[in-house]
Amino acid sequence: MGKMEEKLREPRPGKPLVVIIGAGFGGLEAAKCLKGKDVEVLLIDRNNYHLFQPLLYQVATAGLEPNAIAYPVRAILRGAKNIHFRVAEVYRIDRPKKTLSTSIGPIGYDYLLVSAGNRTNFFGNQKLSENCFELKSLNDAIDLRNHVLTCFEKALAEKELEKRRSYKTIVIVGGGPTGVELAGAYAELARHVLTKDFPMLDLSQVSIILLESGNSLLAAFPETLRGETFSKLIELGVDVRLNSAVAGVENGTVLMKTGETIKAETVIWAAGVQGVNLSDGLTDKPAKGSRVPVTPQLHLLDGKNVFVIGDLALASPDDPLMAPVAIQQARCAANNIMNSIQGKSLVIFRYKNRGMMATIGRKAAVATIYGSNFRGLMAWLIWLLIHILWLIGFRNKLIVLIDWAYNYFTYERGVRLITRKPKTNRLPELER
Amino acid sequence: MGKMEEKLREPRPGKPLVVIIGAGFGGLEAAKCLKGKDVEVLLIDRNNYHLFQPLLYQVATAGLEPNAIAYPVRAILRGAKNIHFRVAEVYRIDRPKKTLSTSIGPIGYDYLLVSAGNRTNFFGNQKLSENCFELKSLNDAIDLRNHVLTCFEKALAEKELEKRRSYKTIVIVGGGPTGVELAGAYAELARHVLTKDFPMLDLSQVSIILLESGNSLLAAFPETLRGETFSKLIELGVDVRLNSAVAGVENGTVLMKTGETIKAETVIWAAGVQGVNLSDGLTDKPAKGSRVPVTPQLHLLDGKNVFVIGDLALASPDDPLMAPVAIQQARCAANNIMNSIQGKSLVIFRYKNRGMMATIGRKAAVATIYGSNFRGLMAWLIWLLIHILWLIGFRNKLIVLIDWAYNYFTYERGVRLITRKPKTNRLPELER
Repeated sequence: MGKMEEKLREPRPGKPLVVIIGAGFGGLEAAKCLKGKDVEVLLIDRNNYHLFQPLLYQVATAGLEPNAIAYPVRAILRGAKNIHFRVAEVYRIDRPKKTLSTSIGPIGYDYLLVSAGNRTNFFGNQKLSENCFELKSLNDAIDLRNHVLTCFEKALAEKELEKRRSYKTIVIVGGGPTGVELAGAYAELARHVLTKDFPMLDLSQVSIILLESGNSLLAAFPETLRGETFSKLIELGVDVRLNSAVAGVENGTVLMKTGETIKAETVIWAAGVQGVNLSDGLTDKPAKGSRVPVTPQLHLLDGKNVFVIGDLALASPDDPLMAPVAIQQARCAANNIMNSIQGKSLVIFRYKNRGMMATIGRKAAVATIYGSNFRGLMAWLIWLLIHILWLIGFRNKLIVLIDWAYNYFTYERGVRLITRKPKTNRLPELER
Repeated sequence: MGKMEEKLREPRPGKPLVVIIGAGFGGLEAAKCLKGKDVEVLLIDRNNYHLFQPLLYQVATAGLEPNAIAYPVRAILRGAKNIHFRVAEVYRIDRPKKTLSTSIGPIGYDYLLVSAGNRTNFFGNQKLSENCFELKSLNDAIDLRNHVLTCFEKALAEKELEKRRSYKTIVIVGGGPTGVELAGAYAELARHVLTKDFPMLDLSQVSIILLESGNSLLAAFPETLRGETFSKLIELGVDVRLNSAVAGVENGTVLMKTGETIKAETVIWAAGVQGVNLSDGLTDKPAKGSRVPVTPQLHLLDGKNVFVIGDLALASPDDPLMAPVAIQQARCAANNIMNSIQGKSLVIFRYKNRGMMATIGRKAAVATIYGSNFRGLMAWLIWLLIHILWLIGFRNKLIVLIDWAYNYFTYERGVRLITRKPKTNRLPELER
């Protein structure tokens, strides 16, 4: 035990210590690349699991259970003798002292690889963050699932018409992939599940409203797929409103810039992300969205022993905020750390863009892969296949497959449970 | 909608309203028995799911995910037109006014069937309830799982020997089925999973201590099975201490009546249950453990329109606190409510005792069925089969089967995730 402590804080001479912050797609890939190499690696995350974020919206919409998309980091790294893992929150990076200040005490490093991701950007608007749900963590997703299901239970007991309608209204702000996927999944939850669970509620009044300030959904996708997405969501009954900017959200009311208001007990903010708040220690001049500018070799402009990758890094403004970028950057950065240790020259990162995809609903998705566009059933099948393959762990692949097959054939959602206190305390009496 | 509200509070003439409190084994069975009958039924539970309590300890020990043992009540009752369901907490029963005071307002009834179960009995000791974990709800189980896993993460960063040991010590108070099942499952978690997850921790120091104030484990079981349970737990490395009464628990220390102390960050209280706090409205003279005395026909001694069943009821002191009793009582009580409405005479409840069982670990269980005793592999297989058959819903059966097969063949526990804030705030810095 004591041995371990000492090894971690004072790596043995000749064994440089690489500290990786974040066990997301980037950090985990970097750790795997450094497995068995002549370095000691310490991976730090505030959770003890790797979260498969692309399916987070399915937890929020009661399609998957939380455990299906989270996998214990220790199980992933088992057998890698030079890789250590700690559950800790990193508070500050002190580059002059090569030390991190963390919830489990100071941790020194020789090389630092930061892959800490991003968080929701409320653009400094405190009211927004208090009155909106977000979808970045597993807890966010569980909170959201519990809240939406609780709202329908509340609607049953509510006699005032306007209030009852507001329990049945879900507003999603932001027409990117998260917003589109949430809107489609909630529309199907309402149509296929809630109508049967609540036959006494007038569910024609359920409103799923998707607000996008720009003039198109999925702005990063080719135009034909954007049109497809729009019409498919309309077909599912989603009230899609383009050119609709939100001015504020308060007490169950969304105020539009036009002055219009929408009453809704559920407002989800999916309209922006920013780097986690570690950028202070990494750069004096953060780029847009608190991202940290890095060289083409992925280290800091003024520090060759600190690499930043994934959503937090800004290597090229063309690279999207996506798992494949983080994974490819992880390989490059891990490689460059070893090159640096061995006195070799560093390699330059170039993103191999294989494409992107988003799902809308049953047998409905859009994908652009190696320049080819897919939609409908074909895109949906590609989406299913790729996500199953990406998931870590045999058990999780199997559970997700079963849940999807179950949802597909029965039109059910097995996990529509209200398991926790809602995030807001607007509905205290319904919960224990 | 308005229609529905009125129907529930003022049942149509000729349609008596039966209100059932609790969607556990008893309440759910009673609702099913009344399906399609000439009554309106309103089932109330504080959760929107039925909890399969016999497997709760497997959630606490990271063997099953919470969603596998919880099933949405609305999905169970779908298609039963005369049965309605509300998520609500019942505060008080006002028998003269035939009204319940609840979190969603007053609810009137013609017949009331109370199957609200029991809660942990800390015997009025506030310190115990503050310093011990309990295992009655899904949240309790998730809290416990998160806490135990967090303790091992904490142990890694703890330099003081005694404190480190206390993170690795789990004390279970009470040698009934819950205590035995928890002790066995934690011992296997430590041996098969934590040793691999934490190779740097000295896990020979992990202590699972089972404290029983009496002179035997599983006091309700035949003597040969009690001996078998004791030796199997010892074999698994559990420190079983009989005749060991606890005087108090405070600040991570268990104080024994002998004056001895045990340092442990995890203390689980499984040493007693009492009826939920609805007995005030039901009886002036509650029996031991806050149970409500009922007639052999299962209604109150002084009220023929109020039936009490399950763990809360005391029909015969010989009947154990088990799901089969609650289920059989539910059938009798539902029957008697219909008899009462139709002016027929009521039938007397008699428990058909088929037996009882408890699991200890891999291929190890004890069961006494129709007077025959089973142990080891045979008892374990019977236990597995019966629990799979009892689980509600095809999806849950399948998921539990897969998890068990996975745990069995890989010696893994797929769901060892720390997903939530721990119940205590002793470890705030490890959590978000």
